[in-house]
Amino acid sequence: MSRIDYQGVLDEIIDEVQSEFGKGHVASYIPALKRVPPRKFGMAAVTVDGDVFSVGDAFEAFSIQSISKVFTLSMALNAKGVALWQRVGREPSGDPFNSLVQLEHERGVPRNPFINAGALVITDCLVASTVNARRQIIDFIRRRSGNAGLCYDVEVARSEKTHGHLNAAMAYFLKSHDNLNSDVEAVLDVYFHQCAIAMSCVDLARGFLYLANGGDCPLSGVSVHERSRAKRINALMMTCGLYDSVGSFAFRVGMPAKSGVGGGIVGVIPRVLSVAVWSPELDPSGNSHVGTKALELFTTKTGMSVF
Amino acid sequence: MSRIDYQGVLDEIIDEVQSEFGKGHVASYIPALKRVPPRKFGMAAVTVDGDVFSVGDAFEAFSIQSISKVFTLSMALNAKGVALWQRVGREPSGDPFNSLVQLEHERGVPRNPFINAGALVITDCLVASTVNARRQIIDFIRRRSGNAGLCYDVEVARSEKTHGHLNAAMAYFLKSHDNLNSDVEAVLDVYFHQCAIAMSCVDLARGFLYLANGGDCPLSGVSVHERSRAKRINALMMTCGLYDSVGSFAFRVGMPAKSGVGGGIVGVIPRVLSVAVWSPELDPSGNSHVGTKALELFTTKTGMSVF
Amino acid sequence: MSRIDYQGVLDEIIDEVQSEFGKGHVASYIPALKRVPPRKFGMAAVTVDGDVFSVGDAFEAFSIQSISKVFTLSMALNAKGVALWQRVGREPSGDPFNSLVQLEHERGVPRNPFINAGALVITDCLVASTVNARRQIIDFIRRRSGNAGLCYDVEVARSEKTHGHLNAAMAYFLKSHDNLNSDVEAVLDVYFHQCAIAMSCVDLARGFLYLANGGDCPLSGVSVHERSRAKRINALMMTCGLYDSVGSFAFRVGMPAKSGVGGGIVGVIPRVLSVAVWSPELDPSGNSHVGTKALELFTTKTGMSVF
Amino acid sequence: MSRIDYQGVLDEIIDEVQSEFGKGHVASYIPALKRVPPRKFGMAAVTVDGDVFSVGDAFEAFSIQSISKVFTLSMALNAKGVALWQRVGREPSGDPFNSLVQLEHERGVPRNPFINAGALVITDCLVASTVNARRQIIDFIRRRSGNAGLCYDVEVARSEKTHGHLNAAMAYFLKSHDNLNSDVEAVLDVYFHQCAIAMSCVDLARGFLYLANGGDCPLSGVSVHERSRAKRINALMMTCGLYDSVGSFAFRVGMPAKSGVGGGIVGVIPRVLSVAVWSPELDPSGNSHVGTKALELFTTKTGMSVF
Repeated sequence: MSRIDYQGVLDEIIDEVQSEFGKGHVASYIPALKRVPPRKFGMAAVTVDGDVFSVGDAFEAFSIQSISKVFTLSMALNAKGVALWQRVGREPSGDPFNSLVQLEHERGVPRNPFINAGALVITDCLVASTVNARRQIIDFIRRRSGNAGLCYDVEVARSEKTHGHLNAAMAYFLKSHDNLNSDVEAVLDVYFHQCAIAMSCVDLARGFLYLANGGDCPLSGVSVHERSRAKRINALMMTCGLYDSVGSFAFRVGMPAKSGVGGGIVGVIPRVLSVAVWSPELDPSGNSHVGTKALELFTTKTGMSVF
Repeated sequence: MSRIDYQGVLDEIIDEVQSEFGKGHVASYIPALKRVPPRKFGMAAVTVDGDVFSVGDAFEAFSIQSISKVFTLSMALNAKGVALWQRVGREPSGDPFNSLVQLEHERGVPRNPFINAGALVITDCLVASTVNARRQIIDFIRRRSGNAGLCYDVEVARSEKTHGHLNAAMAYFLKSHDNLNSDVEAVLDVYFHQCAIAMSCVDLARGFLYLANGGDCPLSGVSVHERSRAKRINALMMTCGLYDSVGSFAFRVGMPAKSGVGGGIVGVIPRVLSVAVWSPELDPSGNSHVGTKALELFTTKTGMSVF
Repeated sequence: MSRIDYQGVLDEIIDEVQSEFGKGHVASYIPALKRVPPRKFGMAAVTVDGDVFSVGDAFEAFSIQSISKVFTLSMALNAKGVALWQRVGREPSGDPFNSLVQLEHERGVPRNPFINAGALVITDCLVASTVNARRQIIDFIRRRSGNAGLCYDVEVARSEKTHGHLNAAMAYFLKSHDNLNSDVEAVLDVYFHQCAIAMSCVDLARGFLYLANGGDCPLSGVSVHERSRAKRINALMMTCGLYDSVGSFAFRVGMPAKSGVGGGIVGVIPRVLSVAVWSPELDPSGNSHVGTKALELFTTKTGMSVF
Repeated sequence: MSRIDYQGVLDEIIDEVQSEFGKGHVASYIPALKRVPPRKFGMAAVTVDGDVFSVGDAFEAFSIQSISKVFTLSMALNAKGVALWQRVGREPSGDPFNSLVQLEHERGVPRNPFINAGALVITDCLVASTVNARRQIIDFIRRRSGNAGLCYDVEVARSEKTHGHLNAAMAYFLKSHDNLNSDVEAVLDVYFHQCAIAMSCVDLARGFLYLANGGDCPLSGVSVHERSRAKRINALMMTCGLYDSVGSFAFRVGMPAKSGVGGGIVGVIPRVLSVAVWSPELDPSGNSHVGTKALELFTTKTGMSVF
């Protein structure tokens, strides 16, 4: 594998995706996201040996949004262990990420930790098990990505809160089913902040390296998870990480990944590398349209799908 | 990888799964399946180099049921190409395999080719594109598994038909949405027969080898699919192959696989091997309880998950 | 009440509804219905004393379709008694009349006898309890309406059968839940025929008079039902008789009624009269657009709502 | 009608319902309701001429809960007119009163004003159109029932708020669909208070008399509604007033009515009387079990169904 010319692959990809711009729509549910220039494009790959390759706007920070759910899942699993799975499932939902239908049918147990309702339960775990969840989360992500300068975008967080009625509805619904222990407003505050973390493609690719590397974080030298737990988080990303497009993403791209409505997607090729892409125009499922294409080209050109 | 003692692994597994018997229930919806002894257990692994390892009742034939859907999907993709995806989706359903709810909400387009409604559309393609679909299907499977003696279990097929009112409901529903072109009864006849094919674990592991081997069938020397199509069928198995337990199966086992209510599960480790297991007691999702455990032990002991 | 000038009311109504034509669509799911001239309009009122008032095409026969479900319910209740309610509910469905979603959620027990699935169960009762259900049904309706010349429109019945895949899907679904005892094809044959009965507004208003008259049929002199059963069928029409527009129909019109996709609606004012209207253009719920307006005018002008 | 011995009927009913106690369950979702003695039973009928008949605990106040939704609907219709129907439907829901499923499928437009989500929209109208909605509501009800001493039970209101997470979820969900204009907490405060009004059967029967009397309130001498609006509110009660038991209630009882989880039910026989009953044990749909039986006996014994 080491002989793959990753930089050449990224250079080809940025050329080939140019025709894909203009086909999606920048997230508009909060003003702070709507202002992002739609044709931004960055991509970065980081090997488990530490080599970094990048192209385009790969060093520019953007709002990670739902990608934060992977970090908080790692933290909550380490805090609560498998008891966590009493409160949240591990199955794809088959419904949009913000749907309440399934949550009602299944009595307040979210299908998986990557839909909004599931992520709220995860955040509730962190609020309950830490003194200062907001501080703990940003510290965890700083250490994983080796960037001590990462921080919350408070304007985005405030915007999330102002327009976050649907997430508030979900949190109160979870509370009504006794699946949210902390104060609803406190959980929402942490949740809106974790979504508002700003990171670049390079930060994200570095930040996910522990999942490509069997749970060991090469940047901090820390073992975040034992190998089987890292593998299982990857499995969850594969079956639940791309909203209601997990099937077609696996079909086209073929790697475990997590997307956010800020236009970022981060994936891992176990034992080899992690790769992050950013392009704000979203497809109807809420995934970056150009980013998905870029990752499809990446696995095609490198021949590195998990399948 | 070649130094793994596969036979030793299988021998350990059969010992370790003994405590798992008695926790599931043999499929009872047709009398022909209900009669199978519940504690049967067989397992076989076949490497892409052709080495065969087996344990227990690995040479005893059982009803492959939904596992047949992978073979017919391969055939239909080769017959119809990507136009097929106009008529069936590629997303996990999030609902039981025999649910009509989603089919109604999505106007007669089944979520994926591995739920019953999707498989009926696939079979309809084969009925429309071949002179004798039943003959073509059994021939395809015989060639893939290198066993010219494979055949339909006519008693099971008849029993499926007698108790197949729900599948008939689905077929008529698809017809009412113009997503079934051939005669309903003709499609059902082929469908009930493909589910009634009897194969052993060794047959099945051999039969899936082309998917572990980038589309090339080592037994017949034929290229069934180009590499990218084989990879994509594996991706579909990963996200849709285990009824409504795809997430927890990926989480626990971590390989693309397809199950059947006859108690069989076949999975592939791309570029390495295919592995089949049989144990008739099913979990609530309709997957073999002991078989899932056996495959979990297999990936744990060999360290060979795709994640 | 006797001093109301019914004929004058009907004459006013036919004038006032002229502006309502062209806003709905003639049922198109079977060719035999699609051919009906869209601007037909007839209306007839029959008092419990036997006075008949009519206007427009009130003597022209049309396809009664779902209106037949009231007659078969009366017959099945007399044949089976309250045991019938084990197999079909008495609640509005909140879903379109041909939806399978609710039927799946509620394990094959249709919400009420006036959605298609419920009517199939009712027809199944008649097939099981009579030697010749088709003969019995037409005889019952002939006697109720005092018109021995009523008959099945065989062309419509054949057309229903040819395009009846959705009803077939429902019947097989009911069978799969053991809520259809007779042969599926036999039940469908009777069902398609009962929908294909041709009657005029005068026939229908006369035919429903027993429900306005406490169960006693003035035309045949027969007591069809005791008073409480007639009252209960009226209650079912009020809450379930207008597809998924029962609420707005009650709101606007305010009488128990049953509609059919042939464009007919028949209602009763208990103790006073029955009234039938026909106009083939349907609103999105499947009820006659002009017919609903005509009945709204009728209750407004006569002041005779049940509310 | 005047010769009916209403007092005799009520006296018979209280005897005959004794065997019905113990079959339902007192509402337990808030502690303040759970404490009510389960075998309370009161019933009152008030004719449009002003005659009052009562039996049992008919003068004891209880929590009216959802019955308040009829009063607030009357107020909101008078404040907003038919524009109100842009924001809330008029169809039975076919789902439990507190379900979010339909609300999501129908993009934040509640099915009718009597399910919780619809009632929240109505209350939002009152909050937006009055200076002090809580004051206006209690004043309206005091005038309708002729009891200036009616008031909010603040303990119940506080208990509603403490346990009102599901209603909060609905309110935020409506807000996320732009169908709640006022501040969520303000609307919830009014809503929890209106549910916490304490009234007796006599108060309630008097309070609904304007709906039995074509919109004119005999106690205050005020015309609350023109006749057609009163008739339409009655129609809404008939098709939507009994949670997901409207069909069987119409079938058994046959009058427009509204129930509350406090165990009260109030119905009207247009042009004749209103009748209220109270018994705290609820059936699975949330309606008073004994109260429903009592009203069934009332219409049977008096022969006064609308059907």
